[in-house]
Amino acid sequence: MVHSEGMTMKQKKAISDAVIERLPLYYRDLLLLQDAGIDIISSEKLGERLGITPEQIRKDLTCFGAFGKKGVGYYVSELSQQIVEIIGLQQHWKVCIAGIGHLGWALANYKTFGRLGFRTTGLFDVDHRIIGQNVGGIIVMSATEMEETIRREGVQIGIITTPASVAQQVADQMVAGGVRGIFSFAPIRLAVPPHVYVFREDLSIGLSRISYYLTNRTDGMMNN
Amino acid sequence: MVHSEGMTMKQKKAISDAVIERLPLYYRDLLLLQDAGIDIISSEKLGERLGITPEQIRKDLTCFGAFGKKGVGYYVSELSQQIVEIIGLQQHWKVCIAGIGHLGWALANYKTFGRLGFRTTGLFDVDHRIIGQNVGGIIVMSATEMEETIRREGVQIGIITTPASVAQQVADQMVAGGVRGIFSFAPIRLAVPPHVYVFREDLSIGLSRISYYLTNRTDGMMNN
Repeated sequence: MVHSEGMTMKQKKAISDAVIERLPLYYRDLLLLQDAGIDIISSEKLGERLGITPEQIRKDLTCFGAFGKKGVGYYVSELSQQIVEIIGLQQHWKVCIAGIGHLGWALANYKTFGRLGFRTTGLFDVDHRIIGQNVGGIIVMSATEMEETIRREGVQIGIITTPASVAQQVADQMVAGGVRGIFSFAPIRLAVPPHVYVFREDLSIGLSRISYYLTNRTDGMMNN
Repeated sequence: MVHSEGMTMKQKKAISDAVIERLPLYYRDLLLLQDAGIDIISSEKLGERLGITPEQIRKDLTCFGAFGKKGVGYYVSELSQQIVEIIGLQQHWKVCIAGIGHLGWALANYKTFGRLGFRTTGLFDVDHRIIGQNVGGIIVMSATEMEETIRREGVQIGIITTPASVAQQVADQMVAGGVRGIFSFAPIRLAVPPHVYVFREDLSIGLSRISYYLTNRTDGMMNN
């Protein structure tokens, strides 16, 4: 889950957060379709692949003006290009990760980030057993080099997977270096200037949601 | 992010997904307040701690009938107990994890799961270098023992952090063992029977959302 804080904005077109969260799912599947040489896909087929109703897909895509051809479907490459532009992935954002414990290590090797155009440009830790190690092709640097590296390389997004106790300090250094977005796994609210957008991920939300559904479901279950 | 599939249900009271996602945030903070010996908290103070507006907090808590005392605030222990019951955390769900790579390893050591009452009851992998290792106090077992362990121990929730290529097979074994909920990090749709609730986590959604906001924000920014 997801808890966003920090900057909000007036958008030219208001697209709901729920739609924005589904766009990367569409995009990733469209890339697979492209790889498979498929040019056109119906909302029904796409829905089947993703577990989303065709109605929802048509509604989502209409939000940003993607219109399929009636009775034919969506043009795969055209649609994926549109999504790239809406999400802003054509920018190939430079990303760094602070805290190369198991979670940071997993994220540094998370292939989907690269496939979406995010380029990992720096990995940082304070532990001397981790500094110097090669993680997914990148050498982990000392956290003391983070601010300067962010500035020099023009890193725009920082990922924080450190313990909560140092997360604010890490965020401060990232902001000082020049990041404009922070993706934080630390379970605390980060104080950042208004030009920085923070997205907080909380891995316990998924389990809590399962608990809620298993507790509150009644016999009138449905599949979707 | 979050994409849920599988079972839905008629609820006695309809509480929106957004509220359900915020409940664990409230709960975790209330535990910290209890630890600090604080008995009463206002929606303003709670909002400040969590980065959520007091209006939103009051609205959320009214949803399930938690009423604070006007001009005083919410009783911390009473409110946290109410949230426990709504989410269903008093059940102390038994959880197992399949795939003890870096992500599985990180989750096995994720203290918030335990604090919320989830008990990790089994860790499974197919790699002989990982089987037998002690991860967070639990010995990793062979995946061949998973189905029987789930059945014997009464594990209700399975977490999948395996590669996508084997995720369906792992889900099938979990379901055969008797889990009722699956928390999956694999980027594929899982086919499960209607009585099983699947919650799919996608770590790339957060980055995509940051990209979207950095791309689409205008000068009329606000802080919240």
